[in-house]
Amino acid sequence: MLQVKQIVTLVEQHIQDAGFPAEPSGLYDPARYILAAGGKRIRPCLTLMSANLFTEHPETHLPVALAMEVFHNFTLVHDDIMDNAPVRRGMPTVHEKWNTHTGILSGDVMMIQAYRLMCSTKNVRLPELLDMFNITAMQVCEGQQSDMDFEQRNDVHLQEYIEMITFKTSVLLGCCMYCGALAAGANQKDAERLYKTGLELGVSFQIKDDLLDAYGNEKEFGKKPGGDIIQNKKTYLLLEALEKAQGQDKTRLMELMQSKPTDETAKIAEVLSIFEKYHIREAAENTMAFHYNAAIQSLGEVDVPESAKVELHQLITSVFGRNY
Amino acid sequence: MLQVKQIVTLVEQHIQDAGFPAEPSGLYDPARYILAAGGKRIRPCLTLMSANLFTEHPETHLPVALAMEVFHNFTLVHDDIMDNAPVRRGMPTVHEKWNTHTGILSGDVMMIQAYRLMCSTKNVRLPELLDMFNITAMQVCEGQQSDMDFEQRNDVHLQEYIEMITFKTSVLLGCCMYCGALAAGANQKDAERLYKTGLELGVSFQIKDDLLDAYGNEKEFGKKPGGDIIQNKKTYLLLEALEKAQGQDKTRLMELMQSKPTDETAKIAEVLSIFEKYHIREAAENTMAFHYNAAIQSLGEVDVPESAKVELHQLITSVFGRNY
Repeated sequence: MLQVKQIVTLVEQHIQDAGFPAEPSGLYDPARYILAAGGKRIRPCLTLMSANLFTEHPETHLPVALAMEVFHNFTLVHDDIMDNAPVRRGMPTVHEKWNTHTGILSGDVMMIQAYRLMCSTKNVRLPELLDMFNITAMQVCEGQQSDMDFEQRNDVHLQEYIEMITFKTSVLLGCCMYCGALAAGANQKDAERLYKTGLELGVSFQIKDDLLDAYGNEKEFGKKPGGDIIQNKKTYLLLEALEKAQGQDKTRLMELMQSKPTDETAKIAEVLSIFEKYHIREAAENTMAFHYNAAIQSLGEVDVPESAKVELHQLITSVFGRNY
Repeated sequence: MLQVKQIVTLVEQHIQDAGFPAEPSGLYDPARYILAAGGKRIRPCLTLMSANLFTEHPETHLPVALAMEVFHNFTLVHDDIMDNAPVRRGMPTVHEKWNTHTGILSGDVMMIQAYRLMCSTKNVRLPELLDMFNITAMQVCEGQQSDMDFEQRNDVHLQEYIEMITFKTSVLLGCCMYCGALAAGANQKDAERLYKTGLELGVSFQIKDDLLDAYGNEKEFGKKPGGDIIQNKKTYLLLEALEKAQGQDKTRLMELMQSKPTDETAKIAEVLSIFEKYHIREAAENTMAFHYNAAIQSLGEVDVPESAKVELHQLITSVFGRNY
């Protein structure tokens, strides 16, 4: 059994050399670039922490953990093209530093490398691991599609938003925990409990993101709050507000959503004042807490000694408690 | 054992419903669209014809065959974006009919679906099949990268071109034959012989493509010959000519390669006259025949009765003899 710190170190040591060949460098350098750019490494850590519950040697399952991180980074490369995002983790995105074609092809090869890493485990339960990985990967694409579809729609319901973030973000966290556990010998039931833990964690995680964007401390969060409001992004907060606001407030919110503000600070302040009137922040925090508690409860049901769960619990709490 | 015609029918019946869910249609309709657009279905046919050598029931391995066709079509969707190609198989390309973002994401989900189809076989040799599929998929990306790199270079050697087309095209044909055979119970040696058959076939196939573009009959080939010459594409013919042409001919060829002609017909005629002077067509036909014969020889070494190979032989001959 390893401690969180040891697992994070293990992941950091190996992620930058995730098995990509040196040449052709035009194909593999962008993959190395985004993997070296950092990130919280939550997915590989959740994978190994879940394996940790069932084995003394979670490091055996490092390739599964790396597969998850490489897959996640593949989605970032392609999503950044689709979102026209110029910056990620404080650095130019792949398509910005190179070009769109490079972003497409390097992303493709990263997805294939994720499968190669999975297959390299030679785990007896490889077919089961792949079934979960395949369905998850498809759902992640479906989530991204819904996210893009939502941009064209003005009638997105809160429930649809939860479904979208479940597919776009949460299922991969569930997949990490499920595969880590299964690879390490967990029974199906415990693997499913950990899947649910990851799923619920992902939803609370995404709502936290929306909250931080609106209410985060600029110094801790690393960017000015209100970015989502300026971009009229359909966040949990905005959709909750659209469902709760009445009369003129609702009309005004819909007007603001279609406007390109000349005074951004004023727009942010006005939207936040509507949020305040309808207690939107509290509603989001409640929903976030609901899913967080569901995650903790499902973890509680995993049939291993409570003492074994301390490290994983600590990781989850730190993710939930983050301000960045 | 099935006949070529039965196998083609089987593939056509199933390829258009390759297991994609109905929704979200924005994601899956483009996948169905390109799969319905036709093509020669060479890859799934080679897969099943190879299985056919080792089993009475090649249809059992249909998911492996469909995986190959879905993977191939994924590469077409992404390559068409990178090549800015507006038309494929006489129809608008996916990114042209929808948009680039749709092309990226639908392509992604097609690649995942290819893996899902592979995994759905529950074949005892799945890990071996996946090892081959993974390495092939990476090589296909490397081939596409080289192809794009070549566009920026004026010093591409014929040998590099053969390597590029081997990765971009041939390895997948080899993979089809290898996986079809292995799934159906072939031993490693025979699977490798069939891999080599596919590899050599792919190279001769690509050189044939280059020849048809320069010398094809417009009615049979479906497009005006000379397209590659107008676009200064580094084909086998052009690279062979650049290696063989002397003095003024070489200088003129390099001038022509950098020109945007006002008179396209005159440019084509001039390039073809240089080809003729240096017997480029014959050289290409010889190289094509060399690889075709290597394919046939490797097939000959497969340890099954010659009578069992008749159908596969016929398929290969028809591919080689095509004028379209």
